[in-house]
Amino acid sequence: MASENHKESARPVLPRTGIGIDVHAFAPESDPRPLWLGGLFWDNERGLAGHSDGDAVAHAAADALFSACGIGDLGTHFGTDRPELAGASGVTLLAEAARIVRAAGFEIGNVAVQLVANRPKFGPRREESQRVLTEAAGAPVSVSATTSDGLGFTGRGEGISAVATALVYPSS
Amino acid sequence: MASENHKESARPVLPRTGIGIDVHAFAPESDPRPLWLGGLFWDNERGLAGHSDGDAVAHAAADALFSACGIGDLGTHFGTDRPELAGASGVTLLAEAARIVRAAGFEIGNVAVQLVANRPKFGPRREESQRVLTEAAGAPVSVSATTSDGLGFTGRGEGISAVATALVYPSS
Amino acid sequence: MASENHKESARPVLPRTGIGIDVHAFAPESDPRPLWLGGLFWDNERGLAGHSDGDAVAHAAADALFSACGIGDLGTHFGTDRPELAGASGVTLLAEAARIVRAAGFEIGNVAVQLVANRPKFGPRREESQRVLTEAAGAPVSVSATTSDGLGFTGRGEGISAVATALVYPSS
Repeated sequence: MASENHKESARPVLPRTGIGIDVHAFAPESDPRPLWLGGLFWDNERGLAGHSDGDAVAHAAADALFSACGIGDLGTHFGTDRPELAGASGVTLLAEAARIVRAAGFEIGNVAVQLVANRPKFGPRREESQRVLTEAAGAPVSVSATTSDGLGFTGRGEGISAVATALVYPSS
Repeated sequence: MASENHKESARPVLPRTGIGIDVHAFAPESDPRPLWLGGLFWDNERGLAGHSDGDAVAHAAADALFSACGIGDLGTHFGTDRPELAGASGVTLLAEAARIVRAAGFEIGNVAVQLVANRPKFGPRREESQRVLTEAAGAPVSVSATTSDGLGFTGRGEGISAVATALVYPSS
Repeated sequence: MASENHKESARPVLPRTGIGIDVHAFAPESDPRPLWLGGLFWDNERGLAGHSDGDAVAHAAADALFSACGIGDLGTHFGTDRPELAGASGVTLLAEAARIVRAAGFEIGNVAVQLVANRPKFGPRREESQRVLTEAAGAPVSVSATTSDGLGFTGRGEGISAVATALVYPSS
């Protein structure tokens, strides 16, 4: 009986895992843009192309949260039917994703993102990025970085990639 | 004593994480094939090459389950020594993977898969795909989708990629 | 009251997820090197370039552990300020990563790594690799393998990629 009770009460804290990938191409030199990445502005760095700020780290984190809950992806939630979010920053989208996830009945355990890119050199500002994204999500967001050893589109410097995992819990 | 008991009973529900990646090239135009992806048939879309149906979403999900349990991968379980599975659909392989995982002493928490591809446009059928894969696995399978912003082999439309994570629990 | 107590005692075992990616290029034929991968030496196989042994499987596992704890990455911990680790094997780095993670206040649940490569043929030595890496980490490490179906840098045989997830728990 005690063990039955235990099972019932333990069940609600079983987590769910999610995954998110985001890729952005660098803006062409003919159309330079500012670089926003990991919730930070990077001075004197080549920016990313696209309608958003191209913050692949924040976008991958948001997608991992949606994935863990099974409620879609960036396209589902921030598509063309939400014109007020057009051009929104990665931090804004991550905060909004966290709000949507909680409204859908989940608590956020944590999010972990790894950036794959030649530039910018992320290490010196890693902790600053973690603070900004953690505040946006209202839950721990870790950020790490690596290169692809000169291989593939990230190695050729055509763009950047970020991969994230997240854990969420059904709210009790 | 109570806390000791608690520890003993809580320990079995500690989850294990797994990861799975699957990549398939599109079939050449000279040898057209039907497209099966996320457990669904996609009409008027270019199919994927290979001996299987090329359902990278279902395959990545199966691989993530095997990975979480530490019992190998698609090659281990669906290799040439199981000729009855030659040409099996992704849904069949995912259902069989779930059966193997449970027979190995694990419960499935959830599986999350993200598709990286230019085509097909996945969003409108995302929930349908989740239902089919969830039924196959007997546990929640979430599916999301993105593109690689025109970069790499997925961006050039040479093929598709899917990445999955899974959580499993030792059966008590 | 019992349920309150349960909640309080269950909370400390909430896991955190992490992710790690590692890519290494094969060494040029003009500068052949031995191949170390998944903690194993592979005879008669082309080795990987770089200052380390290039063991992408072990490196991805270490990075996933750091990521789960939010304490950085390989560059943070094994950078140029630790000259005694220059040229250290992947197994040594994974063992050291596990030590750092525990010193930071975490227990390791498990680590799961998937290798994406044309060569070597990993399946026959998969269990041997799991044993070596599990011993290094002091926690279950699962290893699986796939190819990228001839696509991208792994498909062209320019290098290999490994992706890992990890679960850690705050020590109570």
